[in-house]
Amino acid sequence: MTTTDNRTTAEDLIRNVIDDWAKAIRARDLDKMTSNYAPNVLSFDVVEPLQSVGVGAIRERAEEWISSFVGPIGYEIRDLSVTAGDDVAFCHSLNRVSATRIGGHKLDMWWRATVCFQKRGGQWLATHQHNSVPFDVQSGKASLDIRP
Amino acid sequence: MTTTDNRTTAEDLIRNVIDDWAKAIRARDLDKMTSNYAPNVLSFDVVEPLQSVGVGAIRERAEEWISSFVGPIGYEIRDLSVTAGDDVAFCHSLNRVSATRIGGHKLDMWWRATVCFQKRGGQWLATHQHNSVPFDVQSGKASLDIRP
Repeated sequence: MTTTDNRTTAEDLIRNVIDDWAKAIRARDLDKMTSNYAPNVLSFDVVEPLQSVGVGAIRERAEEWISSFVGPIGYEIRDLSVTAGDDVAFCHSLNRVSATRIGGHKLDMWWRATVCFQKRGGQWLATHQHNSVPFDVQSGKASLDIRP
Repeated sequence: MTTTDNRTTAEDLIRNVIDDWAKAIRARDLDKMTSNYAPNVLSFDVVEPLQSVGVGAIRERAEEWISSFVGPIGYEIRDLSVTAGDDVAFCHSLNRVSATRIGGHKLDMWWRATVCFQKRGGQWLATHQHNSVPFDVQSGKASLDIRP
């Protein structure tokens, strides 16, 4: 297999991970949502705290997040770009959730997502992720209504 | 040179890029601040817009940013972690700026930084960067006073 073939495969494998996470969110499947993370993943999330370490923190946050919705969770990934080397890779995208909060508030929100991977024991694992919205300088408010 | 040596060198080179950017900010050196970026770098910044493309947008934003300060610009990078493969790499850190705004307001702010690199023509270039602060769910405000 040539290097080019290896890279195509790596990119495909990472796209599969991203696609699996999206399916897991729609299905409220916490085990699948927290698969493909390194145990010590360092996470910068959309909301406080500043950072968190470990897949346990990601699972706790995911559980809190999905349990705040009633009914179907709409989840879209746009402009996914994957760059994969032999054993280091990264990707970025614009992600959207559309769902109804407990209490009836309809959420429709976009954010920026960056995920960084390392190949460990033949498997691509996310060792770092960064999710965020920008903020508006005038109001100091997080830009929760911003659209691509 | 073994692969291990190559990787040590790649990590060192990327740490040098990050260190050079920090020095450039302190020196208000726009050319140096915008060196080591790929022309088509995709940027997710702390403030709006949602995303921007190209080193020109980074330079424009950097110029606006540094010209909003009077006197010395304090710039600190904490917990820098670099992961480098043969031609793909990423790093993340917590960055702090402390400076006085025109008008006298003292800014002392931390944010999360992720930078992703590709080796092109023998040089490590940033093709993606993601800078952000989280927000506080209760107030909807960006967390501008958050500390590590």
